[in-house]
Amino acid sequence: MPTLDWNAKNFELILLDQRALPGEVRYITCQDYTAVAEAIQKMVVRGAPAIGVAAAYGMALAAGRSAQSDLSSLREELNTAASVLQASRPTAVNLFWAVRRMLKLADQPVSSPGELKEKLLAEAQRMAAEDVEINRRMAEYGAKLIADGDTILHHCNTGALATAGWGTALGVIRMAHEQGKRIHVLVDETRPRLQGARLTAWELSQYGIPYHIISDGAAGYFLHSGQANKVFFGADRVAANGDVANKIGSYMLALAAKDNQIPVYSVFPISTVDLELESGDEIPIEERSQSEVLDIQLRGLRVTPVDAQARNPAFDVTPHRLLTALVTEKGVIRPPFTENLRQAILGKTN
Amino acid sequence: MPTLDWNAKNFELILLDQRALPGEVRYITCQDYTAVAEAIQKMVVRGAPAIGVAAAYGMALAAGRSAQSDLSSLREELNTAASVLQASRPTAVNLFWAVRRMLKLADQPVSSPGELKEKLLAEAQRMAAEDVEINRRMAEYGAKLIADGDTILHHCNTGALATAGWGTALGVIRMAHEQGKRIHVLVDETRPRLQGARLTAWELSQYGIPYHIISDGAAGYFLHSGQANKVFFGADRVAANGDVANKIGSYMLALAAKDNQIPVYSVFPISTVDLELESGDEIPIEERSQSEVLDIQLRGLRVTPVDAQARNPAFDVTPHRLLTALVTEKGVIRPPFTENLRQAILGKTN
Repeated sequence: MPTLDWNAKNFELILLDQRALPGEVRYITCQDYTAVAEAIQKMVVRGAPAIGVAAAYGMALAAGRSAQSDLSSLREELNTAASVLQASRPTAVNLFWAVRRMLKLADQPVSSPGELKEKLLAEAQRMAAEDVEINRRMAEYGAKLIADGDTILHHCNTGALATAGWGTALGVIRMAHEQGKRIHVLVDETRPRLQGARLTAWELSQYGIPYHIISDGAAGYFLHSGQANKVFFGADRVAANGDVANKIGSYMLALAAKDNQIPVYSVFPISTVDLELESGDEIPIEERSQSEVLDIQLRGLRVTPVDAQARNPAFDVTPHRLLTALVTEKGVIRPPFTENLRQAILGKTN
Repeated sequence: MPTLDWNAKNFELILLDQRALPGEVRYITCQDYTAVAEAIQKMVVRGAPAIGVAAAYGMALAAGRSAQSDLSSLREELNTAASVLQASRPTAVNLFWAVRRMLKLADQPVSSPGELKEKLLAEAQRMAAEDVEINRRMAEYGAKLIADGDTILHHCNTGALATAGWGTALGVIRMAHEQGKRIHVLVDETRPRLQGARLTAWELSQYGIPYHIISDGAAGYFLHSGQANKVFFGADRVAANGDVANKIGSYMLALAAKDNQIPVYSVFPISTVDLELESGDEIPIEERSQSEVLDIQLRGLRVTPVDAQARNPAFDVTPHRLLTALVTEKGVIRPPFTENLRQAILGKTN
């Protein structure tokens, strides 16, 4: 059951609706780019790499469904589609990276709108395939950091569902499991959207990896009492100095690990790095609807007072000083991160 | 609407059922000590000071409802009741303190079982009244730590509901508000039992203090971005060195505050201090039912996989190095905590 799938016959993108999991498996069909933007905004599809690939398909849909018969009008329409898709979520940079890659391709000389449409679709499909390949490469590098008998604390969902397939941090855990290492996972439930309790638990159970769900605030207890010995999470945007924006709660988790000398690894494809930002303080943090915090229920009843208000930042920044290493498809990157990230990406240090 | 109330006419303890708040206001009537023990265990009544007073009433019920007509049999029955009440929850020390205080009184010479029964009831009522008085005294001391314009991050519920009345950490906030200081509160929702989202939000709304509920994992974001400048929480047991066991998540909150040079205050009556324990590592941590973590619902549906398992420690320990000061009815205690706590309690340093 893939996170996203291209239906060539109907020229449409099919998205697994992650809001309904694990209770219900249902799909959403996107026939134009505005439907893709809406699906990203509403978190039908989520996870930085998956959002990137979905946005690429959104651009392919914008071209393929366009009524424009001349190239310059088509390119203009693609610019509009790019703006709409990029406005869907502000923090994860893969979205911007994917849209820019599609726009760059669209600027290259072609002989007809038809050729451009075909090229864009092929590029989106290539990006989906690349994502899986990159994930597997990261997983191979990252699995070396995991030892037989480890208990790993994991935040949010970073599995097959967060990508075009396989996963980032959860992909590393899965690879180590497939290599025969005995692993136990403590799954941060990850309020408010509960991606850990809903999605990571569900994936782990499919892979046959033993786990326990915990409240996010309980991580410190397990790290301090020696009941977890490694921390893995993904990334939504990484600054040039190695600061990592990731799902809200990651920063406090990394602090608790650091306070107990437990290593913290962030796993992401290089497309997540934004070299234009010097530090994580420059990363825009999305604030989502209050209802995500307030609409929590126990025994069928909403628990918050009727007039309650909430704040709901969706991400926070883990400063690089709290991170042991960054796991990418170019290998495991260790401090000093500014130099080593740059070296890994550009092949040079300045 | 008091947390607990003695009904003299029917010789029974009436407890506000905090599990149903804020949706429903309902009461539980306890006519014997086993009902009180069950109410503590199931968290009908919660909060260290409230548990202590409830247990004292449990002892009064054990005596008053006893069929024993001679003093030594009555005292034996009281020992049984003490064991049952003390087994209801292991972490908060006020429970043990209250039961011991009642047992000590029961050992004093009296002329008849009737006299002992009366004395025990009077003592429980005195403890309830004392608790409110102590809370108000702590609140006066603590309110001096709050300045006009502060935004305070608060964990769990420490208000009137957690005590016989007024509150500990929330009592401090309430006092500062009554003094005319403009305060904003960021309310940790406090998974898994959501005492923040359910009870603290409800209390703040009654007092007219502006607040926003946040996910526990979001506290680091607000502390780092300068959107909160003080942290207040209560305590369930405090070791001789000032280490504080409190609701799960307090430790990570204190780490995030420390990382941003933001002061952290723990507010509790002296009865919460356990001088017999050298450090917080010796405090027993209650692990509660998995269902508290797993039975979370969104849109009426349980979100965790059907075969999911959870871990659910109810408390963690915040090491004293992360605490700025301890607020008690004896005043604000600052480091070195070992010496100053001892001095405040025993009036001497060794």
